[in-house]
Amino acid sequence: MDGTRRRFLGRALAALAASGLLTRRTNDAAAAEPPDVPASMKSPGAGFNDYGMPAKYESKVTRTLGRSQPGTTGSGAIRTPLEALEGTITPSGLHFERSHSGVPDIDPAKHRLLIHGMVRRPLVFTVDALLRYPMVSRVHFIECAGNSQLLYQPTPPTLTAGQTHGLVSCSEWTGVPLRLLLEEAGVERGGTWMLAEGADAAAMSRSIPMAKALDDALLALFQNGERLRPENGYPVRLFLPGWEGNMSVKWLRRLKVVPAPIMTKDETSRYTDLQADGKALMFTYPMEVKSLITHPSHGMTLAGAGLYQISGLAWSGEGTIRSVEVSSDGGRSWLAATLTEPVLPRALTRFRLPWRWDGGATVLKSRAIDDAGNVQPEREKFIAEHGTNAIFHCNAIQAWSVAATGEVKHVYA
Amino acid sequence: MDGTRRRFLGRALAALAASGLLTRRTNDAAAAEPPDVPASMKSPGAGFNDYGMPAKYESKVTRTLGRSQPGTTGSGAIRTPLEALEGTITPSGLHFERSHSGVPDIDPAKHRLLIHGMVRRPLVFTVDALLRYPMVSRVHFIECAGNSQLLYQPTPPTLTAGQTHGLVSCSEWTGVPLRLLLEEAGVERGGTWMLAEGADAAAMSRSIPMAKALDDALLALFQNGERLRPENGYPVRLFLPGWEGNMSVKWLRRLKVVPAPIMTKDETSRYTDLQADGKALMFTYPMEVKSLITHPSHGMTLAGAGLYQISGLAWSGEGTIRSVEVSSDGGRSWLAATLTEPVLPRALTRFRLPWRWDGGATVLKSRAIDDAGNVQPEREKFIAEHGTNAIFHCNAIQAWSVAATGEVKHVYA
Repeated sequence: MDGTRRRFLGRALAALAASGLLTRRTNDAAAAEPPDVPASMKSPGAGFNDYGMPAKYESKVTRTLGRSQPGTTGSGAIRTPLEALEGTITPSGLHFERSHSGVPDIDPAKHRLLIHGMVRRPLVFTVDALLRYPMVSRVHFIECAGNSQLLYQPTPPTLTAGQTHGLVSCSEWTGVPLRLLLEEAGVERGGTWMLAEGADAAAMSRSIPMAKALDDALLALFQNGERLRPENGYPVRLFLPGWEGNMSVKWLRRLKVVPAPIMTKDETSRYTDLQADGKALMFTYPMEVKSLITHPSHGMTLAGAGLYQISGLAWSGEGTIRSVEVSSDGGRSWLAATLTEPVLPRALTRFRLPWRWDGGATVLKSRAIDDAGNVQPEREKFIAEHGTNAIFHCNAIQAWSVAATGEVKHVYA
Repeated sequence: MDGTRRRFLGRALAALAASGLLTRRTNDAAAAEPPDVPASMKSPGAGFNDYGMPAKYESKVTRTLGRSQPGTTGSGAIRTPLEALEGTITPSGLHFERSHSGVPDIDPAKHRLLIHGMVRRPLVFTVDALLRYPMVSRVHFIECAGNSQLLYQPTPPTLTAGQTHGLVSCSEWTGVPLRLLLEEAGVERGGTWMLAEGADAAAMSRSIPMAKALDDALLALFQNGERLRPENGYPVRLFLPGWEGNMSVKWLRRLKVVPAPIMTKDETSRYTDLQADGKALMFTYPMEVKSLITHPSHGMTLAGAGLYQISGLAWSGEGTIRSVEVSSDGGRSWLAATLTEPVLPRALTRFRLPWRWDGGATVLKSRAIDDAGNVQPEREKFIAEHGTNAIFHCNAIQAWSVAATGEVKHVYA
């Protein structure tokens, strides 16, 4: 922290102290010892749990359900409550989920992963066999291609940050580099693509370029230390860092090496991006550079002028976040936020900036820039380029208005 | 990965392929398409959950209860199942817990934190006030001073890695740097210590040197993204990176600035280290450099000769892990393991090394070295220096024997 920022923080803290949010004791005698002994100190507390859960006072911090499709179970999406979280790791219980025909019940003792097609040695792996391979651990975000799609709408959604942008989460993923298994199977010349298929009732199927499979793809077995959660692909999922979440096929049952993309239902009728001119983009893999302020955000009310901490998340499927700029005047001026170290490639990056609110109406925005030089666009520019036919890959800047009453709302500004 | 290791890995993988653990299809026609369609693909799966849980097939992966004291609720410890986990983050539901009179039920709206004693302005904070301060996020381990205490015993415990060493866990902690609040309160000259007191029925109380409080101490509010779990100090705990876990006082209700240590019950009758000569060490704060192999470990059985991955955890309360050496011949020779990047200060560090087991009886060990030059000692040397009166701060090397049958057991070797 440099001297200037530190002095600013000192002044800002003094303002907070004067803001009335904290109660200052003026009677030193009364403050010499704590005056009250709470009930929690008068009798023993609760015993142990084999597997712990959040405090009952946090019971409203849950995933929130988006639209679901009638006639199927669990087709839809459930979102991470980004506005209630801090740091960069998403607790697995609050990790977003998108499934196309619910969460299959898969006994790991019976599950098999087949590698076949254009390989010299077709291989079938049990989960126990996969667990014997060399593993790596990496912190990565995963984002549904359809995240933030409500920003294509002509009017801003009146929803929380999580309800609007909560199809992104971040975990420490541990698994086997896919390259090792493909080298063992022996990919034949011309085998430049792979079909990846899930063992769910949607038979989720995507074509994966071999170059990505041989680069940083994982067969993920663990998430935040423990085995994958059912809704995140238990017992094994493909994991393609930075690419649209749908391609990280869950409940993975086979990889078929092929000479060209298969053109599955999931990459033709879905997960293509219809542009303003009526043409659709296909195979738009990396998720673009993006950020949003999670605190304060839509639905919150500031308790009067004074010091606040602006806190948010930034990420890029095309590399590492280089900087995040924050505007508290609707985009006229921008200040560099502090990024939480270590800043990791293709991982959620927490940014923070102290902000002294003067009590007047204003608009907050954040803008992320990655190390490939990509800059998150304003919504107006994004819509001008892409139109409003698509529902995927929206990385427009998110604006929150702050009213003089302290109310924070989603605005297009 | 350098060329030599890569070639070794290639040979090792070939050995694995030949080991029979994976089923190889020899009939290419049969392998051309998957022969079976599992039940999970024939009907929609389960719907959504507001808050997700592990797969039912992982129901045995739980914390394990240690001794508890009769007459009180929840006095004792419950351990992280280290042998079942991978990576470095501990899922919060499996984070270890040590409590001295159970887990208090604290309504965050009613909780207050008092900073008083030798300060110019005694302050009382609500949780909402704390949440407005600038926060930082850092990945740190926390380890109970009594972790691994069974290694003081004359015979090796016949328990799993987690049951023996599972009073250590690692999370991303987010909170307010304590320094900010102490600067606001204005520590008076001579205020060189702090009493930290918890709001549990044990009134857990420790004396904290002001130098640590002003250095890297946090008031932790979030753990792995969400608010602290009840058993980890909800709604606010003191967090002292690298120091014995007991000092990171949970359910923190006051910090009293004082001129000298208070000599509380928790730092005189407990949490002192009785040496062989009858004298006790007090105020032994940092947890020493340490490591253990979690896989394979006691209670597992190897399925025949072939390639295995040795995987384990290393950490040091005195800095950053610089290297971990692994021996597969009882300590005669040592090889450097691969450390998972990024290697962070005072955080669990995952190490891994491929190991080709020849099927003969042997002993596995790991030895951690930190960037302060501290080297984890052999048990024999550790006991010779410290005796067997103490129950705290044991960082001796953990040895696992592998029998020709594949059985892995705890040994002193």
